[in-house]
Amino acid sequence: MQQTGFTISTRGQGLYEFTDEITAWLRDTGVQVGLLTLFVRHTSCSLLIQENADPEVQGDLRAFFGRLVPPTTDPSMSYLRHTYEGPDDMPAHIKAAMMPVSLSIPVVDGQPGLGTWQGVYLFEHRDAPHQRQVLGHLTS
Amino acid sequence: MQQTGFTISTRGQGLYEFTDEITAWLRDTGVQVGLLTLFVRHTSCSLLIQENADPEVQGDLRAFFGRLVPPTTDPSMSYLRHTYEGPDDMPAHIKAAMMPVSLSIPVVDGQPGLGTWQGVYLFEHRDAPHQRQVLGHLTS
Amino acid sequence: MQQTGFTISTRGQGLYEFTDEITAWLRDTGVQVGLLTLFVRHTSCSLLIQENADPEVQGDLRAFFGRLVPPTTDPSMSYLRHTYEGPDDMPAHIKAAMMPVSLSIPVVDGQPGLGTWQGVYLFEHRDAPHQRQVLGHLTS
Repeated sequence: MQQTGFTISTRGQGLYEFTDEITAWLRDTGVQVGLLTLFVRHTSCSLLIQENADPEVQGDLRAFFGRLVPPTTDPSMSYLRHTYEGPDDMPAHIKAAMMPVSLSIPVVDGQPGLGTWQGVYLFEHRDAPHQRQVLGHLTS
Repeated sequence: MQQTGFTISTRGQGLYEFTDEITAWLRDTGVQVGLLTLFVRHTSCSLLIQENADPEVQGDLRAFFGRLVPPTTDPSMSYLRHTYEGPDDMPAHIKAAMMPVSLSIPVVDGQPGLGTWQGVYLFEHRDAPHQRQVLGHLTS
Repeated sequence: MQQTGFTISTRGQGLYEFTDEITAWLRDTGVQVGLLTLFVRHTSCSLLIQENADPEVQGDLRAFFGRLVPPTTDPSMSYLRHTYEGPDDMPAHIKAAMMPVSLSIPVVDGQPGLGTWQGVYLFEHRDAPHQRQVLGHLTS
């Protein structure tokens, strides 16, 4: 059983991949078979496993959720009350409810058991730059 | 490895925090480092980690999902067929698909490794009062 | 600690239950108390725990998400750019972001600790038939 922390620097809304950092940590532990759990310690960003082949997928994900949950300055969102932290704040909490805060990935042959096209991302929902903390826990 | 059950009494749609119950159980186990998994044994409510500072966030979350997935009496939902358990039932199943049924939280220094503003909630999607069962599993 | 793989054959969008395969594997392991984690190795389908009583629930879930995230041929989706893999592809990635890629279920008395009405499903988001791979990991 081992734990670590990952820090992801974000510069506005969008997906930030950190698959390589995870794979490197697993290699350092030497664990061949186990269960890796990731947990993000914030309520305005998400963890996401998504396609890492075509970068347009990442842009489209951001665009879709930006339309499904627009800023609170949008007239359609005028019923929301938690607005004093900025027009991107309450939408960020809503998106954080719709997408994962924790992910569990079996470790096989010393690697995260991801499919061919899967990468691990932090999905930032705020406009301002942030330092995001993700806990990693490895059961072996 | 230890297991427990939490029972959360709900009185209509909304978020019910039970972070303190989780923290108390962890303290009783004496475990300092581990992985806590929560699993809700129902298909019409969710587990959620959300901001525990401003209660308006919880009201806004309920309002947003209530508009995204309105009762089946709403004309926009007339295509749905599973309506005999009440107008709030099928929307509850849909919301239960969009938000977590299980959460995994690393345990650090005998505490759930939550961020400063994170609380653990049961999000009730039904109108009638319910007794909701959540399984807790601690790997150490 | 044991691992396995499940293969689910899909024939278009919809929910495919595999609770029985999971229960049979658990029985074969002989493990009475533990934690079962499922992880799907794709970015265009999801894992879902849902009601297994009325099949109309499954049809309604498919219908709701099909309207929330219509094919890219729908005029409302014309802003999406990742369209060359077919009109159902980018919507599949979006749905895969909104619903679980991993699930963790406590094992109690040698059974998955599911509630009375809970079944485990693969939710296929693509139109064409696929062979979907799900990793199973059992901590005991």
